[in-house]
Amino acid sequence: MENKRVLKIVKALSDSTRLKVLGIIGKKGEISCQELIKYFSLSQPTLSHHFNKLIEAEIITSRKDGTIYLYNMNYELLENYGININKLLTNY
Amino acid sequence: MENKRVLKIVKALSDSTRLKVLGIIGKKGEISCQELIKYFSLSQPTLSHHFNKLIEAEIITSRKDGTIYLYNMNYELLENYGININKLLTNY
Repeated sequence: MENKRVLKIVKALSDSTRLKVLGIIGKKGEISCQELIKYFSLSQPTLSHHFNKLIEAEIITSRKDGTIYLYNMNYELLENYGININKLLTNY
Repeated sequence: MENKRVLKIVKALSDSTRLKVLGIIGKKGEISCQELIKYFSLSQPTLSHHFNKLIEAEIITSRKDGTIYLYNMNYELLENYGININKLLTNY
């Protein structure tokens, strides 16, 4: 099970859009879905797909504030798995 | 270019066989191709494909000693990218 967990995390990281999402969250901190979408020229369903992959892998957290979804990096999880995400994404 | 580098590394990690290869190298240290193959029930061409993915991403190094290929973990590269591979693969 733990092996599947690791694989899920690295698979979630293995996409240029998702790495860009993480690069933005790493720099900006907690960010709303609406704000995050502005950085991309992709459709909202496509972006939602990518956000969900990151949420399912628990790489980012999602919370609702009124009607707004806010995303943040789950540094604790990443550190537990030996991943320094901001170092990985220095150039993102 | 740097972004492509990061993506190449995480894509190379995104496979259960390759994670198992890294788990073995992480525990055993430098290991011959022949020795490594014994841990798997996959064909040699399939395994060679996986080894090459890891070598191309520079996650493992390869050197030839006589007729034997020896593989080792490229800890320096992984650390430069913020990846503590032995922590990631604790359970592999």
